[in-house]
Amino acid sequence: MTASTVRIKLLQAPTRDSWLPEVLANLETVLLDHSHCERKAASTALNFMFRYPSNESLIHQLTQIAQEELTHFAQVNQWLTRLGISLAPLNAPPYAAQLKSQIRRQEPWRFLDSLLISALIEARSHERLGLLGHACPNPELAKFYRSLMASEARHYGIYWLLAIDAFDRELVDQRLTELASIEAQILETPFSEPRIHS
Amino acid sequence: MTASTVRIKLLQAPTRDSWLPEVLANLETVLLDHSHCERKAASTALNFMFRYPSNESLIHQLTQIAQEELTHFAQVNQWLTRLGISLAPLNAPPYAAQLKSQIRRQEPWRFLDSLLISALIEARSHERLGLLGHACPNPELAKFYRSLMASEARHYGIYWLLAIDAFDRELVDQRLTELASIEAQILETPFSEPRIHS
Repeated sequence: MTASTVRIKLLQAPTRDSWLPEVLANLETVLLDHSHCERKAASTALNFMFRYPSNESLIHQLTQIAQEELTHFAQVNQWLTRLGISLAPLNAPPYAAQLKSQIRRQEPWRFLDSLLISALIEARSHERLGLLGHACPNPELAKFYRSLMASEARHYGIYWLLAIDAFDRELVDQRLTELASIEAQILETPFSEPRIHS
Repeated sequence: MTASTVRIKLLQAPTRDSWLPEVLANLETVLLDHSHCERKAASTALNFMFRYPSNESLIHQLTQIAQEELTHFAQVNQWLTRLGISLAPLNAPPYAAQLKSQIRRQEPWRFLDSLLISALIEARSHERLGLLGHACPNPELAKFYRSLMASEARHYGIYWLLAIDAFDRELVDQRLTELASIEAQILETPFSEPRIHS
């Protein structure tokens, strides 16, 4: 089984209907937020490697993920330049921090929770970039969003496969159900500003 | 002026004569340490991007550095696999931490010091990988070390150019002299175990 053939329905709730019009009305901000998301995704992969330096499979697969996220980061930044949008800091929605607050501190649960939360974040990104890829009024930008979707799907598959490699499948399914429920609840309270994870 | 054409003598003292025989007698450990160094170098580049999210030139150039460091990380890890060496944690020499303790906390000095310390670390890596590239008894591994040297030289040039882009040249030269002197002093006390920066 490879990540690309995994069919997992990680998410428990689809994105609310109001999200797409909100972000379409603020595409420049969302593109800037997307740049930050790609950089953070690369950092997340590196942090896993820092914490689990002996896990050969993890190191190998997350090196590839980090490289892909950095490539996407550079691509999003090229789009920002093309559209005349300056790089700038942007306050993050509470989504990732709220999810990460669910990570248990003790190993091996910390490892399991971290993997599943990364899988959920990547799955949600996959879903939302897909929505943008179909609805974005700029056809080239829409095409760019669609081009990222295969990677995002592979990424959430990899985090999930790392979890089932290291833990009993039933345990993974149970914790994933809990965390996916929390993920859906977090998104029930929309962030005040348009973001990929608002 | 591009980084590859910059001729800078950042280092104030050459590596002590005893370093090369020490590491040649412990090539497996040094290769594992090298893997950690490449991952840390990628993290350093990402941390700069996190801290200075509006600096377009920095973001553009350090994205490339991070990508190259990750490529080197994967290549070193392939060498470890090839030589049957398992990935494992390794206690770090105090070199980087001692250098980083010199970073002033207030901006813009924090930025200047951070850039110059990264430049010094890359310059020292360049020098030592060069020594390994000429003395390593495994000709293929020696060739690999030599193949990394051009990148390392470019990397220290980029950090240095980012410094002189943002600060007065005289100020950069003065602080670089101070930090390079400290870098040389740190290496006068050899670490008890063989490392790239022991």
